[in-house]
Amino acid sequence: MRPKVILFGDSITEESFTNGGWGAALADHFSRTADVVLRGYSGYNTRWALKVAARAFDGVCEDGEWPLALTVFFGANDASIHDRSSGFQHVPLDEYQSNLRSILSFLKERWPTTVIVLITPPPIDEDGRLRNPFGDDPSGLPERTNDSAGAYAKACIAVAAESNIPVIDIWSKMQQFSGWEKSFLRDGLHFTAPGNKILFEEVVKKLEERGISVDTLPVDLPLISEIDPKDPLKAFDK
Amino acid sequence: MRPKVILFGDSITEESFTNGGWGAALADHFSRTADVVLRGYSGYNTRWALKVAARAFDGVCEDGEWPLALTVFFGANDASIHDRSSGFQHVPLDEYQSNLRSILSFLKERWPTTVIVLITPPPIDEDGRLRNPFGDDPSGLPERTNDSAGAYAKACIAVAAESNIPVIDIWSKMQQFSGWEKSFLRDGLHFTAPGNKILFEEVVKKLEERGISVDTLPVDLPLISEIDPKDPLKAFDK
Repeated sequence: MRPKVILFGDSITEESFTNGGWGAALADHFSRTADVVLRGYSGYNTRWALKVAARAFDGVCEDGEWPLALTVFFGANDASIHDRSSGFQHVPLDEYQSNLRSILSFLKERWPTTVIVLITPPPIDEDGRLRNPFGDDPSGLPERTNDSAGAYAKACIAVAAESNIPVIDIWSKMQQFSGWEKSFLRDGLHFTAPGNKILFEEVVKKLEERGISVDTLPVDLPLISEIDPKDPLKAFDK
Repeated sequence: MRPKVILFGDSITEESFTNGGWGAALADHFSRTADVVLRGYSGYNTRWALKVAARAFDGVCEDGEWPLALTVFFGANDASIHDRSSGFQHVPLDEYQSNLRSILSFLKERWPTTVIVLITPPPIDEDGRLRNPFGDDPSGLPERTNDSAGAYAKACIAVAAESNIPVIDIWSKMQQFSGWEKSFLRDGLHFTAPGNKILFEEVVKKLEERGISVDTLPVDLPLISEIDPKDPLKAFDK
């Protein structure tokens, strides 16, 4: 039975199977070793994620089966500015941390050995948000700011540290590259193909650090390279 | 619990989550309604697929759970020319049909209500195969031919007809477009992004014909459009 890698998050997770998406890239990477299960909920913040966590994973694993790994990627919506057009998605910083802790507790109790990877909210290209109809606010100011996203990223990293779980600081990582605003973000928030590639590589790296890689996972059924052209069926009798 | 759509096939299935792949496109299409499960085995023919079918689906569904749909996409390797460089993957035409029948019987017995969609082998661009190192044969002739693939496609359609199950004739479909050889096939056999798009659209169409579509499947948890900005939590109490 193949192990599972579950992706739990907001729209950046939900749309991760579009062209060049980080979720699809993970499914391709693990194509013979693990199943990648998509649990992305567009627009959700940690308050709503906490409400639905049990239902979101209903039936994903059999009784007694624990996922190999799980990414938790929320905060982009929590960090919306409270009195602008996406304010109904806003969650205060301290509640964001407390919600993350509750989600982690829920997951650790349900699946104690599953490797959980937290992902911080991504950086925000405010100019990109203002050009996007969803990012428009009557004030003429962006409904999300990079400073706010950064504060939530730091809060996420702090929760990961106190819980001793791996975290991907995608907020900082992306900003190490000049031109990140347009090259990695298509609308100031969601990822372009190169942006997706950055996150994909970070997830693979974090999983490898915890011993999860295509080099160590059992391969599901014989690879073509293991099949003897002179006696192919031998490979299937093992 | 989300229903599952399983993709069972050879390398064209295994690599269907690469950029623009038909499997990833299906996962994206059904992102809130169904889980797409990848069971692609590069190089496999129907003889080997039949050998491993039970193991391939081990643990994919819980006891009593049946997949919503399943694609069966073999034949490209069966149709390899028997005395050329990929000859060890060749399966005679009548055995190909008999293996397909056995795979269908196995699936129908295990999951009686699952919608099974057969997919014919794709057309072959012989020039593309000759330019590919894996397609090279000492004779200077391609190890796969379009005529052979066409014969297996017709045989696949015949099995679908006698079993009364839907079939996608991707061999004919692709050849309806001029320039199919290079625009849809990257190495004479495997799909380019436009080739993947054609198959994705055909799978969506076939599933719709059997009542499976994002318009009829229940959506997993409230959509952001269903969440009242004035009272967001109301949506989660249902």
